[in-house]
Amino acid sequence: MGTVSPLAPAAVPGLPPLAGVRLATAAAGIRYAGRTDVLLALFDPGTSVAGVLTRSKCPSAPVEWCREKLKAGKARALVVNSGNANAFTGKNGREATRFTAALAARASQCKPGEVFLASTGVIGEPLKATQFDGVMDGLVAAAKPGAWLEAAQAIMTTDTFPKLATASAKLGKATVRINGFAKGAGMIAPDMATMLAFVFTDAPISASALRALLKSEVDDTFNAVTIDGDTSTSDTLLLFATGAAAKSGAPRISSASDGRLKDFRRALHGVLADLSEQIARDGEGARKLVRITVKGAVSKKSARRVALSIANSPLVKTAIAGEDANWGRVVMAVGKAGEPAERDRLAIWFGDIRVAAKGARDPAYDEAEVSAYMKGHVIDLTVDLGLGRGTDRVLTCDLTKEYVAINGDYRS
Amino acid sequence: MGTVSPLAPAAVPGLPPLAGVRLATAAAGIRYAGRTDVLLALFDPGTSVAGVLTRSKCPSAPVEWCREKLKAGKARALVVNSGNANAFTGKNGREATRFTAALAARASQCKPGEVFLASTGVIGEPLKATQFDGVMDGLVAAAKPGAWLEAAQAIMTTDTFPKLATASAKLGKATVRINGFAKGAGMIAPDMATMLAFVFTDAPISASALRALLKSEVDDTFNAVTIDGDTSTSDTLLLFATGAAAKSGAPRISSASDGRLKDFRRALHGVLADLSEQIARDGEGARKLVRITVKGAVSKKSARRVALSIANSPLVKTAIAGEDANWGRVVMAVGKAGEPAERDRLAIWFGDIRVAAKGARDPAYDEAEVSAYMKGHVIDLTVDLGLGRGTDRVLTCDLTKEYVAINGDYRS
Repeated sequence: MGTVSPLAPAAVPGLPPLAGVRLATAAAGIRYAGRTDVLLALFDPGTSVAGVLTRSKCPSAPVEWCREKLKAGKARALVVNSGNANAFTGKNGREATRFTAALAARASQCKPGEVFLASTGVIGEPLKATQFDGVMDGLVAAAKPGAWLEAAQAIMTTDTFPKLATASAKLGKATVRINGFAKGAGMIAPDMATMLAFVFTDAPISASALRALLKSEVDDTFNAVTIDGDTSTSDTLLLFATGAAAKSGAPRISSASDGRLKDFRRALHGVLADLSEQIARDGEGARKLVRITVKGAVSKKSARRVALSIANSPLVKTAIAGEDANWGRVVMAVGKAGEPAERDRLAIWFGDIRVAAKGARDPAYDEAEVSAYMKGHVIDLTVDLGLGRGTDRVLTCDLTKEYVAINGDYRS
Repeated sequence: MGTVSPLAPAAVPGLPPLAGVRLATAAAGIRYAGRTDVLLALFDPGTSVAGVLTRSKCPSAPVEWCREKLKAGKARALVVNSGNANAFTGKNGREATRFTAALAARASQCKPGEVFLASTGVIGEPLKATQFDGVMDGLVAAAKPGAWLEAAQAIMTTDTFPKLATASAKLGKATVRINGFAKGAGMIAPDMATMLAFVFTDAPISASALRALLKSEVDDTFNAVTIDGDTSTSDTLLLFATGAAAKSGAPRISSASDGRLKDFRRALHGVLADLSEQIARDGEGARKLVRITVKGAVSKKSARRVALSIANSPLVKTAIAGEDANWGRVVMAVGKAGEPAERDRLAIWFGDIRVAAKGARDPAYDEAEVSAYMKGHVIDLTVDLGLGRGTDRVLTCDLTKEYVAINGDYRS
C-alpha cells in the first residue's frame, strides 16, 4: 500500500474540458482524513444517460437507485462518495440515497430522479448522508469544467493511481469529445475496491442509443477484466451525453445502429478499453498485467469461459507472480472450464514462445528463454484449443502475497 | 513448508489389517531423494473396484487408463507414484501407463487390465516408467497386510501429514472393515497437490453396487471440499472390495439398494468424510478450517452453489486468514453466485453469533465478541437465505500468504 503500482501508465493523461459538464470535489469526512471523498458532477439540461450495473443479487442502495432512475435516462447531477459503499445497510441505506438525491436536487435545481449516485468503501456500515449536507452548496458553487484529475482522485479507495482516459471522434462534420475516469483495484472487492467508472461525452445521443452502445462496447472491455473473480455489490458504469456538440453541428443520434456513429463507437471503445486496462494494472498487489488470449474455441463465448477459467485460477496467478511459466496449470485451468477441449490438440504460448503442443511439452521448449520472458511486466498468454474459430481475450493480473496482505490485514 | 499444518488431527489413526489387501512401498527415485515414492497394493482374486475420476477435459494418462479399466470392475493391483503426474505427456504418457501395468501384471501374475494406476507430481514431464522396473519384483515380494501408514506416506507431495481413516460396519451378521488413505493439499493443484484417495473393504460387494454407493457418498464428502477451486487433471478416488469377509459370513451384495448395506453406507460415508476433511485441514498454507453451511436456499443444489461461491471467494478466504469477520464479503459472494437470493432476507452467523440479518448489520453486533471467535482454528460460517428448505455444507480453508508462497515459489 502507499506505493504506486509498477504497472501504472507512465503519465496521467490531461483531460480537456467537455461542454455541458462541471465538476467539484470536497472532503466530507466520510471515512478518510485529509483527502477529498465526495464528487459532484453537474450536467446541462438535456443530458441523457445509460448505465451498466452489477449483476449481484445483493446490490447496494445506490445501485438500486440508479437502476430505477436509468429507465427515464435523464441526468442533471452525479454524486459519488468514497469511504462507505452504502451496501447491505437496509432501510437506512435507502433513506440515505433519497436524502442525498434530494439534497443535490435542491442545491442544483433539478429533480431528484435526475440525480445519479454511487458509493464505494466499507460495506454494512450505515452511511451518514447528513455529512453531505455541509458540503453540497459549496460543491454546486465550485463546480467548474476541467477538474477531471480531482474528480478521479476523490473516488479512489485502494487504487494506487488515478485512472483517466480521453478521446475525440468525428460525428457528422463535428468533432466530439469523450472523457472518462474510473476506480477499482479488485474486480471487484466489495469493501474498498468496487469498480466505478463514469464516462462523459458532448455528443447528442439519446438514452436508448447510449444504452445499446454501452451494452455492446462493455463486453470486450470492462466485462473482459477480472482481478479475483469476485463481483462487487456496487459496480457501476455510467455514460452521460450532454449533447452540447449539437451547437457545433453534431447531428442528433437516436439509434445505436446509425451509421454516423462508427467513429464515435471506435473512440468509446478506446476509452472503455483504456480505463478497464488501467483497473487491471492496479489490481490489488499486482506486479504483472496478464493478457490471456484463447483461440481455436468452438465459439467466442466458449473462448471467453476458458480465458476466464485461466484468469481466475489461483494456481495460474500465483505461478505468474513467481515468474514461473507453469503451463501445466494452464492445462489444468483449460481442463476444468467445462468447455469443449481436447488435450491432444492444445497448444500454449507465453509471449511468442510455444511451450506446449499436441498434448505434450513442446520439443523445442527452452526453460531459460521462457524464464527470461516471465520477468517482464506484461505477460501474454495464448492458448489454441485447435477446435474452431472462436477467439477472445481477457485481462487480469498476478496473485501476490501483497493481495493477501491487502485483503487479509485490512479491517483487523 | 516442512512444518505440519496446525489443523492436523492430534494423532494419525492406526489402521488394522484388511483381509485380501497387501501393501508395499519403495523409493524409485522419480523425483524425491531419501523417501519412498511408489506404492503397490495387491488384491486377492475376486476383488471388485469402482472409482470417481476428475472431470477435467485434459485428464492425465493414468486417469484415462483407470476410466477404461473401471468398466470391467476387477482389480488385482494398484500402482501409485508421487513426484510425476504423468499428465500432458502425450504418447509417452500412454506408453508409460501400458508399461507400468504390464510390469505389475507380470510381477503379480494378473492381467494388465486388472492393474489400476495413479500418479501425482509435476505435470508435463515425461514419466520414466522404466524406473519402476528395478523395484517391482521387490514390491511384490515385500507386500504385506498392515503397511497402511507407509502407503499413505509414499503418495504424499506437498501434504504436511499422512491422511488415514478406518471404520467397521455390520454387514448381515458379520463385521466388515473399511480402511482408506488419501493425499492432496490443494483442491486441487495439478503440480503437487492432486487429490488421490484409495479406500478398501473386505465386504463382498459387486462392482456395480460399489459404483452406486460411491457416487452417492462422494457428493457430500470429497465433492464438498474445495481449497482453491482448481481441479486437477489427475484426481482419483478408487474403492476396492476384496470380498474376503464372505468367509466370515458377510452376505454377497450385488445392488446398492440392498437394505443390508445401511450400516456399511454409514461407515463408508464416515471414512470418506474423514479423509476429505483431512484434505481441507492440509490445504496449502491453511491455518483455519472453514465449514460453510447455507440453508434456506430454494434447493440443495442452489445451497451448494452459494456455499461454493463463498468457499472459493479469495476475498472471503483472505478475510478469514486475517481473522476478520468480514460478513460484507460473504454478502458479496452470495450476490455473485447467480442463485436466487434476496438481500433483505439474508442472515449470516460466524459460529453462533449472528452478524447480519434482514439486509443489514445485526443490531446486537459486537465486534469484540466476533473477533474473539475468529481466532479459533475452526470457523463455522452459516448463511440463511430465507427462501426455502435447501441446505448444504462445504469445507474449505483460509487463503494465506503461505498459499501464494507455496504455489508462487515452487518451480522457480
